[in-house]
Amino acid sequence: MPESAEQLSDLPVTLADVEAARPLVSAAVLRTPTLPAPRLSALTGADLYVKFENFQVTASFKERGAVAKLARLSAGEARQGVVAMSAGNHAQAVAYHGTRLGISTVIVMPEATPQVKVAATEAFGARVVLFGDTVADAQKEAQRIARDEARVFVHPFDDPDVIAGQGTAGLEMIEDAPPLDAVLVPIGGGGLISGMALAFAGHSPATEVIGVEAALYPAMWSALTGEARPCGGPTLAEGIAVPRGGELTTVILKRLVPSIALVEESALERAVNAFLLQQKALAEGAGAAGLAALLADPERFRGRRVGLILTGGNIDPRMVASVLLRELEREERIVSFRLTILDRPGMLGRISTLLGKLGANILEVHHRRTFLDVPAKGTRLDLTVETRDQHHAQTIQAALEAEGMPVQRLGAGGVDW
Amino acid sequence: MPESAEQLSDLPVTLADVEAARPLVSAAVLRTPTLPAPRLSALTGADLYVKFENFQVTASFKERGAVAKLARLSAGEARQGVVAMSAGNHAQAVAYHGTRLGISTVIVMPEATPQVKVAATEAFGARVVLFGDTVADAQKEAQRIARDEARVFVHPFDDPDVIAGQGTAGLEMIEDAPPLDAVLVPIGGGGLISGMALAFAGHSPATEVIGVEAALYPAMWSALTGEARPCGGPTLAEGIAVPRGGELTTVILKRLVPSIALVEESALERAVNAFLLQQKALAEGAGAAGLAALLADPERFRGRRVGLILTGGNIDPRMVASVLLRELEREERIVSFRLTILDRPGMLGRISTLLGKLGANILEVHHRRTFLDVPAKGTRLDLTVETRDQHHAQTIQAALEAEGMPVQRLGAGGVDW
Repeated sequence: MPESAEQLSDLPVTLADVEAARPLVSAAVLRTPTLPAPRLSALTGADLYVKFENFQVTASFKERGAVAKLARLSAGEARQGVVAMSAGNHAQAVAYHGTRLGISTVIVMPEATPQVKVAATEAFGARVVLFGDTVADAQKEAQRIARDEARVFVHPFDDPDVIAGQGTAGLEMIEDAPPLDAVLVPIGGGGLISGMALAFAGHSPATEVIGVEAALYPAMWSALTGEARPCGGPTLAEGIAVPRGGELTTVILKRLVPSIALVEESALERAVNAFLLQQKALAEGAGAAGLAALLADPERFRGRRVGLILTGGNIDPRMVASVLLRELEREERIVSFRLTILDRPGMLGRISTLLGKLGANILEVHHRRTFLDVPAKGTRLDLTVETRDQHHAQTIQAALEAEGMPVQRLGAGGVDW
Repeated sequence: MPESAEQLSDLPVTLADVEAARPLVSAAVLRTPTLPAPRLSALTGADLYVKFENFQVTASFKERGAVAKLARLSAGEARQGVVAMSAGNHAQAVAYHGTRLGISTVIVMPEATPQVKVAATEAFGARVVLFGDTVADAQKEAQRIARDEARVFVHPFDDPDVIAGQGTAGLEMIEDAPPLDAVLVPIGGGGLISGMALAFAGHSPATEVIGVEAALYPAMWSALTGEARPCGGPTLAEGIAVPRGGELTTVILKRLVPSIALVEESALERAVNAFLLQQKALAEGAGAAGLAALLADPERFRGRRVGLILTGGNIDPRMVASVLLRELEREERIVSFRLTILDRPGMLGRISTLLGKLGANILEVHHRRTFLDVPAKGTRLDLTVETRDQHHAQTIQAALEAEGMPVQRLGAGGVDW
């Protein structure tokens, strides 16, 4: 039985706060579209609606919380400026809206942050300070700057104004989608889902609000279940790789979000790929977490009307290429063969001609002769070719074998970058 | 001086036809969002609004024309079914909406069409017939089937109903964007721009409607200028690689589209990349043609409010990966070095350790010793590494040189797939 708005009035942030943030956010942040996603629906068996926060100027929902916070600064605070710690979407959101409002912004990032991210944040008008080896170091430096320069520290999630701002995404989704049975919301520190859960509890209490975390970073799951699991490891969803959720957000989620799904890396990768190829939208790993949860457990959602929020689109282009190529390998549209052949002039020509006739596009050739497991008069040829599909890959392999060459299929992963 | 609707009433399709198609199209086709594109605006210097036709179920605007045509069939015609010739977006659009309306669809494609496209069209419920080596052969077979099976032939562009249907994209854009100074519309056979030009002439006559063709396929440009240029060659924009425009569309464009921009392949590639990384939207080459024209000639549009229509998002994932990786090479975020080193145990270890310290991620290593231009005791090492940026690439090169190893930078293109 969902609690009423009155019963929820003791929470540190309320529906009234989210609604009060709405005009502040609407004045400066794109009302992103919420659209039916028929191809993803066909893929998953649920009836999906997606809200596209990747269309924001800085390509994530983080602008909502940043604006709500910045717009509520006193005139004196605004003059002093703000400071934040982030190498990601929060950094760009604070930088962009701070500059737009004439508020000086300092963003602290760990020293090893890629120059691309530093440059992007500087381009939005922030002063970037590189400090320390870890996020924890950078965090301390940001708090030192806040103290010494009398700047307001803008927390990425554990702040009532930020939570209220993120919640406006929920208000818009409720207005723009038909009534939803469930909504899947990624959890990093928990700011977005806290705000959205307040919006749904108030205006669409029948909608089940389900959190999604990367299985490598089950911080909020641990906090809510009481079963502490470790956090760590490289994840495609670095935007939600937060080892500890917020205090305010934990209090809110304990009341409003009974269920958190944990998604494995393989599901995140499939989800980024599906958003791009089926929905034609670029999602970062964290932004695809909701879809990943659906792909991992379609039975839970089959036939239900489900909302997804594509929270952000800031993903390294090399990672996008890698996700695409790995999927092509899984589908055998890129295959690698290892041939053991006689070391005779003309052999490579013969093989290339055969592949050409079969319509296989050669991507890479490695010709090696110094292996002990190859006969002295033999040589080894590793071929990577593009095929039309799995059936075509098999036809090509059979044709090579028919020429009397032993063929070994090399595992996927050969083009893993 | 733009002509009035009355003056345009002698054209083979009129504004009234486009408006009459509107309810037919609206009943079955997504009203795609038209959104401001601040990052692409910053990149080009124009004030851009983009309409996202890649969000349609079959990921292109072609559904509009297909629906307008199919909805106007007589009951007898609908019972007999339709036939179309296309290996691309038109095929999927006709298949999907034919099936939805209970109309049997046959799609003829050339024999060499990739199985992926055949399967996609069959999945939408069409019977696919593979015939002949060329589009012209397939076209003849489609016409034969139309005759022998008494099916209506659904032309991809040279049909009044199809043109009227495509024009509904213009009506929506006029309503959803602020008044535009110009709109850039890709031209294949000319169906979309004919319909959109009618919409703009009627409701927004101050907007300059500009066509865009791939420079390799300047068919409509040739027809309008009278200067015949050849068509041919592999283009990223295969969706508009049409060697001859339609008769109806040529008549309409002669009156309503005084200017056609021709875009080179490099601009198309940059535009696909920019749509993906800046706007977080997947565009096929043809779908990015308008942005390509802007990138190629920003001065013409600087400070003006310009509409773009992202016409479709059906692009091969291998091509997307290639476009992304090539751009990373241009930005020196992926670089290849050729080192000539002494052939001593431990050398590769020394180099790898150095690269690791510098934060360069090694992507590929080729170690070769059988080259005559290398000293007998030397060996050649080709390294491909990922860098943070151009400056980082230079730092890495300098560090290798400081170790006493001659370093040659290999040209971009090494990872061109």
